[in-house]
Amino acid sequence: MSGEDDLIARLFAPIAGPGALGLKDDAAILEPSPLHDMVLTVDALVAGVHFFPDDPPELIARKALRVNLSDLAAKGATPRGFLLTFAMPASLSDDWLTAFAAGLAQDAAAYALPLLGGDTVRMPGPLTLSVTAFGEVPRGRMVQRTTAQADDLLFVTGDIGRAAIGLQCRLKPEDGWVQGLDDTQRAALHDGYLLPQPRNALMHVVRAQARAGMDVSDGLIGDVAKMMRASDVAGRIRLDHVPFSPAVAAAIGLAPHLRETAVTGGDDYELLLAVPPERADVLRHGAAAVGVAVTQIGDVLDPQPGMPELLVTDGQGKAYEFAIRSFSHL
Amino acid sequence: MSGEDDLIARLFAPIAGPGALGLKDDAAILEPSPLHDMVLTVDALVAGVHFFPDDPPELIARKALRVNLSDLAAKGATPRGFLLTFAMPASLSDDWLTAFAAGLAQDAAAYALPLLGGDTVRMPGPLTLSVTAFGEVPRGRMVQRTTAQADDLLFVTGDIGRAAIGLQCRLKPEDGWVQGLDDTQRAALHDGYLLPQPRNALMHVVRAQARAGMDVSDGLIGDVAKMMRASDVAGRIRLDHVPFSPAVAAAIGLAPHLRETAVTGGDDYELLLAVPPERADVLRHGAAAVGVAVTQIGDVLDPQPGMPELLVTDGQGKAYEFAIRSFSHL
Repeated sequence: MSGEDDLIARLFAPIAGPGALGLKDDAAILEPSPLHDMVLTVDALVAGVHFFPDDPPELIARKALRVNLSDLAAKGATPRGFLLTFAMPASLSDDWLTAFAAGLAQDAAAYALPLLGGDTVRMPGPLTLSVTAFGEVPRGRMVQRTTAQADDLLFVTGDIGRAAIGLQCRLKPEDGWVQGLDDTQRAALHDGYLLPQPRNALMHVVRAQARAGMDVSDGLIGDVAKMMRASDVAGRIRLDHVPFSPAVAAAIGLAPHLRETAVTGGDDYELLLAVPPERADVLRHGAAAVGVAVTQIGDVLDPQPGMPELLVTDGQGKAYEFAIRSFSHL
Repeated sequence: MSGEDDLIARLFAPIAGPGALGLKDDAAILEPSPLHDMVLTVDALVAGVHFFPDDPPELIARKALRVNLSDLAAKGATPRGFLLTFAMPASLSDDWLTAFAAGLAQDAAAYALPLLGGDTVRMPGPLTLSVTAFGEVPRGRMVQRTTAQADDLLFVTGDIGRAAIGLQCRLKPEDGWVQGLDDTQRAALHDGYLLPQPRNALMHVVRAQARAGMDVSDGLIGDVAKMMRASDVAGRIRLDHVPFSPAVAAAIGLAPHLRETAVTGGDDYELLLAVPPERADVLRHGAAAVGVAVTQIGDVLDPQPGMPELLVTDGQGKAYEFAIRSFSHL
């Protein structure tokens, strides 16, 4: 075992749960709760694709956990633990690894998601992380993507577009609209890209009230279309009802084309929920009780011949034409 | 969704089990058997590190599954399914992907390990696979690495060194000893590196008879030392009892230094089992019944002050001195 492997073992051991067997075995043990299903999800993050190689290591670690936590939240699943694949270029310093482990420890504790095991390998390429997260739900109760029904209302949690516009801020800091924002707004957008806010606080409400759910990771509009397609229904979104944070609203005020970036850009890690109308108030009250904002952005329709699978309208009910052609022809 | 993603979805769908929800959800469902523990393991493989980029794609896929299946076998766990992270350089052709999926399908079926889900991402670097495999054991019955006891006998399955010597064959085809082998022998060594033979047929016997178990992936000698250290015991290995295939024996006959390569080289994916002496015959008969060879290679000792954690002796009982210094000072 090299010194680096020793360091990783020492850094990761405190994050490990009891089933991890001190990270000294080939496998971990997870004791499922009686009459529950395991919920399994995996997401990979590659330096230069999903984060910048020079992002703070603790935030890279936390983002890797949070994109998986967000999937568990969307399924109404209680977190149980995670496995980490850590494919590591030779260039990472001991300080970098120490900070990475600290970030992992922080969110593993915050979300009650202990490390169960993993694999560390050398990577003659960019740092690549793969997190497999395990959750559980009472048997048969996982909230699926394919189960939205006509007349359900469509809700999103939190607000949309911070990550996508934060990324644009970062890529084009000289753009006029970036210059037009104040420091607080720029910081809010920057943080929105670096560190998603998964909505695990809402998991019990999701499980009890949502008919269908998924997390918004590839852009709100595209992800609504995915849920509609998977559920064999059609959807209708009111673009003027999509919730934006003050910083996103300010950016859109300065550069109106960013509204489209916000709703198609991705990396939101908010939840998209299809909720029967009679449960909408319970959802609203339950979400308020756990401190998560929810906003109705549209509804689910019976698909009709010739009707697009997703109709996006502005405040006057007029169909919105996206500049990105693919979104005009969902 | 790009054409490539479409192709992957189409290729992978037939490998998916019912809990995979048609690979259309953010997460998969796994229904644990009542009164069982889940056994979780993950292994990453990077092109240029764990396989050659130009290896046949179907064998890369099968190796990725098999290194994980081997961990499940060592734990006495029944396979239940897997998740795949597929970090893909742009250079992979449709033919490559089709062959990869065919290899995955073949072993998923052969080992009853259905695909439950995964994540496909772009990789500006080498092809990187991460497989998380799920198995199960009756509650509390996972065979661990840390539980070997003094007087246990040490067994390995199959034979040792094919992969390590196969790799040498491939790296140094002009070496005299490679030239001295016949085609059948060279092919056997080559295949030994490309495609491990996981011992999942032995899982019930392992679960019932082994006191401790792990798979041999980092070299036999080093892995025995790991088990001894993890179990707070000492070990004794008879080097002349280590089983070699005819091709490995022929290579060692031509180049005696390869004996050391064989027992320290790794990538064997055989099982190392610590078995109480009174269960040794049951293990032998059980293994014979499922067609897996097992060989006693040593035993477990009480650790004594000044005694090495692992004593390796030759046929005359004399301590063997490894040319690789680290192995002389285990």
